[in-house]
Amino acid sequence: MTAHRSALQARPDPTVLDALRAVVGARGWIDDPGEIAPYLDEQRGRFRGTCAAVVKPATTQEVAAVVRICAEAGLAVVPQGGNTGLVGGGVPDGGVVVSLTRMRRIRAVDPLNRTITVEAGVVLSELQDAARDAGALFPLSLGAEGSCRIGGNLSTNAGGVTVVRYGNARDMVLGLEVVLADGRIWDGLSALRKNNTGYDLKHLFIGAEGTLGIITAAVLKLYPQPRVEETALVALASVEAALTLFGRVNDAAGDVLTAFEFFSRRCLEFCVAHVAGVADPFAQGHQAYALVKLSSARPDDPLRETLERLLADAFERGEVSDAVVAASEAQAGALWRLRESIPEAQKAEGGSIKNDVSVPLSQVPAFIDRASAAVDAAIPGIRVVAFGHFGDGNIHFNLSQPVGADRAAFLAEWDRIDRIVADVAAGLGGSFSAEHGVGRLKRADMRRYKSAVELDLMRAVKRALDPANVMNPGKVVPFD
Amino acid sequence: MTAHRSALQARPDPTVLDALRAVVGARGWIDDPGEIAPYLDEQRGRFRGTCAAVVKPATTQEVAAVVRICAEAGLAVVPQGGNTGLVGGGVPDGGVVVSLTRMRRIRAVDPLNRTITVEAGVVLSELQDAARDAGALFPLSLGAEGSCRIGGNLSTNAGGVTVVRYGNARDMVLGLEVVLADGRIWDGLSALRKNNTGYDLKHLFIGAEGTLGIITAAVLKLYPQPRVEETALVALASVEAALTLFGRVNDAAGDVLTAFEFFSRRCLEFCVAHVAGVADPFAQGHQAYALVKLSSARPDDPLRETLERLLADAFERGEVSDAVVAASEAQAGALWRLRESIPEAQKAEGGSIKNDVSVPLSQVPAFIDRASAAVDAAIPGIRVVAFGHFGDGNIHFNLSQPVGADRAAFLAEWDRIDRIVADVAAGLGGSFSAEHGVGRLKRADMRRYKSAVELDLMRAVKRALDPANVMNPGKVVPFD
Repeated sequence: MTAHRSALQARPDPTVLDALRAVVGARGWIDDPGEIAPYLDEQRGRFRGTCAAVVKPATTQEVAAVVRICAEAGLAVVPQGGNTGLVGGGVPDGGVVVSLTRMRRIRAVDPLNRTITVEAGVVLSELQDAARDAGALFPLSLGAEGSCRIGGNLSTNAGGVTVVRYGNARDMVLGLEVVLADGRIWDGLSALRKNNTGYDLKHLFIGAEGTLGIITAAVLKLYPQPRVEETALVALASVEAALTLFGRVNDAAGDVLTAFEFFSRRCLEFCVAHVAGVADPFAQGHQAYALVKLSSARPDDPLRETLERLLADAFERGEVSDAVVAASEAQAGALWRLRESIPEAQKAEGGSIKNDVSVPLSQVPAFIDRASAAVDAAIPGIRVVAFGHFGDGNIHFNLSQPVGADRAAFLAEWDRIDRIVADVAAGLGGSFSAEHGVGRLKRADMRRYKSAVELDLMRAVKRALDPANVMNPGKVVPFD
Repeated sequence: MTAHRSALQARPDPTVLDALRAVVGARGWIDDPGEIAPYLDEQRGRFRGTCAAVVKPATTQEVAAVVRICAEAGLAVVPQGGNTGLVGGGVPDGGVVVSLTRMRRIRAVDPLNRTITVEAGVVLSELQDAARDAGALFPLSLGAEGSCRIGGNLSTNAGGVTVVRYGNARDMVLGLEVVLADGRIWDGLSALRKNNTGYDLKHLFIGAEGTLGIITAAVLKLYPQPRVEETALVALASVEAALTLFGRVNDAAGDVLTAFEFFSRRCLEFCVAHVAGVADPFAQGHQAYALVKLSSARPDDPLRETLERLLADAFERGEVSDAVVAASEAQAGALWRLRESIPEAQKAEGGSIKNDVSVPLSQVPAFIDRASAAVDAAIPGIRVVAFGHFGDGNIHFNLSQPVGADRAAFLAEWDRIDRIVADVAAGLGGSFSAEHGVGRLKRADMRRYKSAVELDLMRAVKRALDPANVMNPGKVVPFD
């Protein structure tokens, strides 16, 4: 196995760097240590990488030439977009960083085919805007959308808050253009909804975190633009009640359900205590809250009536404790601010250990119960801050330090606590990484939670597509 | 390359057959030529295969034992479900047929997680019924649903009439259980909506037509059960008008658009002439027709108003010529019978050459124009019978023989005409196989229309997962 990881020189030969620089030119070349620094850090500061240079190709052909040179020289290639990843997938360990940030053309928009063709360096928010300008919606939406790049979103199969309606980034892709590990270009830019002609190669590269090739462009689906939106914050007696409510909403209005976010009482208390302009809309406290959003492309869709009837019926059945339906966009914005300000509010409560697990939706209550008990047994007084994408079974089971505990000492327990939480999720058929990926951070989890058969399959795929292990070596698939 | 295709003995050693029989027992063993015959034919009679025996394992473990024995003996394994495929993908060329028809358990239903776990041999209509019994919908629907098996649907990434709303079979899968080419079992039965932990292996096996492993079970998504449905047949002046109408409907009601089927005037004339009980709902003939279906899970959804307003607006703009909205389920059924009886009606008009191409939706009018001219130039008087899944860009561009032509002589032109049509589709960014797959029938098309890079990638994947070329050899990926 380890043989597969060798053949990569730490310090490249200067003639190789000269050849790379000749491909991308001065505008596409960074080797000054100070200028390189921003490309070496993962934003949470868990990793600091090293690399010989950062190259910024302007075209797919330049990417191909760069990879070909690196492949021949045995130099590692680390693709990078907006560098907003959370698992160190874009942090280099030697070799060169290939930044796609100069490739930001929108190549084509075809409203009748409901597709848009973009280069990897397009910022997600720019892509959202381009779709809107075409009278359509590109639904992928996440916190980093102002700086992350679509190439990175696809390479990590980004999730976000609209998965319950539109799926993950993977589900929005029709075709890809990829520079392979030997520098050849695969033109898979199909704009077809149906095409059963051999193996589906695009799904191999999506979510591969740059270990099989570099995604340089994609054909993405466009969706109808929502014209009516309704948001409600629902107060609930328990996580079980949230699950019951989800079932009711999905059954009766699943076609128009765009978000079903969850947070606990502690989340709301933290927000009210620490975030300016955030207020508790309810007269009393409740154990759990669901933020429900319905949206429809039909201008005359009576979504408000649907939502109010759903909530009234649930209230009558005793399944919900209280609810507010936003009467205006401003009110809806205020409800969303509650959900979105949880991470900020948590900062004021000291050290926080974060997770990104998922379980089958039906197992979320059991997960929160068991994981809460397990982490409290490990660190008495630890404070569970559970929130997230309930409709996808994706709970950010964050943990704030006990009141008065030492921040550094608490954060030193990160790996032990992470393991405890991931074990509980795995025991319920869950995943240790719902949307953040593997990168460097979770390779040990791959060994712990994946079967030998599954790891062997992934290794076989990696060897088949990148026999020299040039593409983002040491990430995702453990070989040692 | 050819080295990869050898190592497969035509006539297996009797001790190998004894070992296989010992695994599946008498109930799972067929070697009588008369009983084997139904497993050797493709339903359109284009292929007749040969095999040493048909084995019918009852469990995943039996499938694994069978494949292990075949792998060790270098005996080809040809997986087969309902044997309803149209490209010869399940027709053996020696070796043994592994029929999954005895593996028809529904292992689990989880309504709150909106998932169902089924074995490969479950008949699609049984799966649809099980979903309905759980208060949900499994949306995959196609002509063969009464006899095709879900394992085959997934191995061929089946399409059907609901793709515009729910996607292809691929899009309905969360997890798979697969017996690999060496007989090991990959348990990938994840029921998670979000799980970014390495390469997405399931998408490799879906649509691979059994050339990488045998799908033995799957975790599938369930969807909200539609409670309101409205159907309209719209008369149009041209194919362009159908495209314009699709854009209007998708933009204003895309959330609830469940089908947008197309057929030409000739299709309707054939049906009225040859199918009992089918009548033209319009006073005069029109060039094109669109069958539009909206459906919603909300019991009180005013779909009828939406549909009528859409059509009234389009009529005012001169974009539609006439329309009937079904006032009852019976009327809707009659409209759908028109669309569904086209293949039957075509039989009465003599020989028919069939296609299964797709193009970007925006290119459908250009495709029908160019392909019609091209085939008429090849065979003057040939009659284009164009219909299909317009919303997916998937037109069944069928061709009936010229009036009075010799049927056999016309059908002898199949390959030449097929090539002409596929070339036109390819020139518009289309595919030579939208939903039927490759199998044996379209391997030459793979060589003609796929790039060398793409074929190399597929060969590398095949070699990585099936180095001995045991799984359904000679299908899908051309090595010669």
